[in-house]
Amino acid sequence: MTELKNDRFLRALLKQPVDVTPVWMMRQAGRYLPEYRATRAKAGSFMDLCTNPELACEVTLQPLERFPLDAAILFSDILTIPDAMGLGLRFEQGEGPKFDNPVRTEADVKRLPVPDPEQELKYVMDAVRTIRRELDGRVPLIGFSGSPWTLATYMVEGSGTKEYAHVKGMMYDRPDLMHKLLDTTAKSVTSYLNAQVAAGAQTLMIFDTWGGVLTPRDYKEFSLHYMQQILDGLTRENEGRKVPVILFTKGGGPWLEDMAATGCDGLGVDWTLDIGDARKRVGDKVALQGNMDPSVLYSSPERIREEVATILKSYGPGSGHVFNLGHGIHQFVDPERAGAFINAVHELSPQYHK
Amino acid sequence: MTELKNDRFLRALLKQPVDVTPVWMMRQAGRYLPEYRATRAKAGSFMDLCTNPELACEVTLQPLERFPLDAAILFSDILTIPDAMGLGLRFEQGEGPKFDNPVRTEADVKRLPVPDPEQELKYVMDAVRTIRRELDGRVPLIGFSGSPWTLATYMVEGSGTKEYAHVKGMMYDRPDLMHKLLDTTAKSVTSYLNAQVAAGAQTLMIFDTWGGVLTPRDYKEFSLHYMQQILDGLTRENEGRKVPVILFTKGGGPWLEDMAATGCDGLGVDWTLDIGDARKRVGDKVALQGNMDPSVLYSSPERIREEVATILKSYGPGSGHVFNLGHGIHQFVDPERAGAFINAVHELSPQYHK
Repeated sequence: MTELKNDRFLRALLKQPVDVTPVWMMRQAGRYLPEYRATRAKAGSFMDLCTNPELACEVTLQPLERFPLDAAILFSDILTIPDAMGLGLRFEQGEGPKFDNPVRTEADVKRLPVPDPEQELKYVMDAVRTIRRELDGRVPLIGFSGSPWTLATYMVEGSGTKEYAHVKGMMYDRPDLMHKLLDTTAKSVTSYLNAQVAAGAQTLMIFDTWGGVLTPRDYKEFSLHYMQQILDGLTRENEGRKVPVILFTKGGGPWLEDMAATGCDGLGVDWTLDIGDARKRVGDKVALQGNMDPSVLYSSPERIREEVATILKSYGPGSGHVFNLGHGIHQFVDPERAGAFINAVHELSPQYHK
Repeated sequence: MTELKNDRFLRALLKQPVDVTPVWMMRQAGRYLPEYRATRAKAGSFMDLCTNPELACEVTLQPLERFPLDAAILFSDILTIPDAMGLGLRFEQGEGPKFDNPVRTEADVKRLPVPDPEQELKYVMDAVRTIRRELDGRVPLIGFSGSPWTLATYMVEGSGTKEYAHVKGMMYDRPDLMHKLLDTTAKSVTSYLNAQVAAGAQTLMIFDTWGGVLTPRDYKEFSLHYMQQILDGLTRENEGRKVPVILFTKGGGPWLEDMAATGCDGLGVDWTLDIGDARKRVGDKVALQGNMDPSVLYSSPERIREEVATILKSYGPGSGHVFNLGHGIHQFVDPERAGAFINAVHELSPQYHK
């Protein structure tokens, strides 16, 4: 394997010294980029793009051509696993994801297989291998998955939801069934992420997009517990380097200490926390990734720079901070504002790493 | 005025002894009730229902006929104020609220009037007077308003939003303009709420539905500051009784201490906090209102009872707790489950008030 030319992202996650604070953006390969929209149009549907390793590689690399980002992230979707389980994923125009076969009954839950990542999900592993080859050591590649709870919300609802009627109905009324569903999903995520590492992913991130809609008790029992189960089964070293793991629960601010205790390397933090306060709470246990409000990118380059400065100052001196947005970059952001953001992080952060 | 027959809601908000924990439900007059849907059909549009004091009174009282609730809440909408400012409110079928004239420019902001509640909003005051008369002292009547920040999100976006592009764009780029908008809105809310008290409202609640999408810094500057301004201008006593004020920021868990320091009487708490932890954090400063996940109402009466017991135990002995859901009751909940919830609170809580 080629030597990494820029490893500051990996070093920051392991709290090793860096020259500047590394930065990347959630959903950096996405609709705000005209070149992404062109590739997407060429591919056909969104799933056609995800399942085509060459095109998935193309869009993964697009933001790196524009901006001096410190990490690449596999272009894929969190719903590949439920799709591989046979739930029949569709993306309808302007409607978000839908499953033809949502999981509602005991029989539905018991029928769920643990997919073989090199069979049903080979297209993802091929994408990882292709991207890793094309990156040629420029920056590390992040592999990822949804958390079991987050995947379960889509699997049980059959689509996105505002009210969580079915999935919370199952959780409250049939916790045994929900646990079985989450256990199968956790096993699937573990083997999926390990296969991504074997294929070349150098960091793993688990997106718990909907953990924040739970009570503290239910978060621990139905979301965090299964992220712990995954962490305990992950390959944490490959090619002679550590493979850091980042957990990100959107709205997970109240539970940072519990998340830090799982043995993960980094925590994603959304913008509802002050990152300096978050650092005080987790101490030396984990690195932090975040946490600029993506909406700041609607404002002027000067204002963006000011917000970057505030966050860098709040985190303070020393390694352990990966700069990022607190959630994915929005579709209607001007790419030039994203560029102003990335540059501000690199220009303003050296003073914190002397 | 008639003597109040059941004042345990007011007493709990003031931390005075009660026999059982009082309970009501946000959006208790709403679409989950078939009798509400019938009145709504009779009225015409949603705004036709809001602007008709007799029908607004009818739907306000409907849940009290079904359930032994300890408070009534004025049936209205938080967007009556921006509508009275001339923004042109419409509710389109299945689409949520829309404003014909969103506030986007400096001229738009400067043009905004402070409505006279007994002129442009007389229909709301008439509804309060009618409801108060018809309640005849059964339980106290809650008046309410949206918070300035929450109203501003709709006023600037012109509709509901997931990304807050326009309102946060204005906040980040033109904080002077945003402050002017929030100041005018805060003045309007203050006179609107004081008029509701004069018309008969016995408690006031400020709904800050979107304060939780801000950073801690911005929450204090753009949301909490204006709720404080309102609190400082409110009539806090009427008819020889205190008029308690409740603040509710959805997702406001991180800022409970700051909210409690405003001098309000109660804080609404959503289900992402343990209510016992919340009580430890605010001490004797304020009462707490909440905090069952509304989705628990999709489960069995036994499970609902179990969750009520957990929350009562977590709050612990003594007054200062108004039981409620952590957000509005969902449209598709079976009214019988709501009844099971209300009864469970009354049946299980006396042991905490000996």
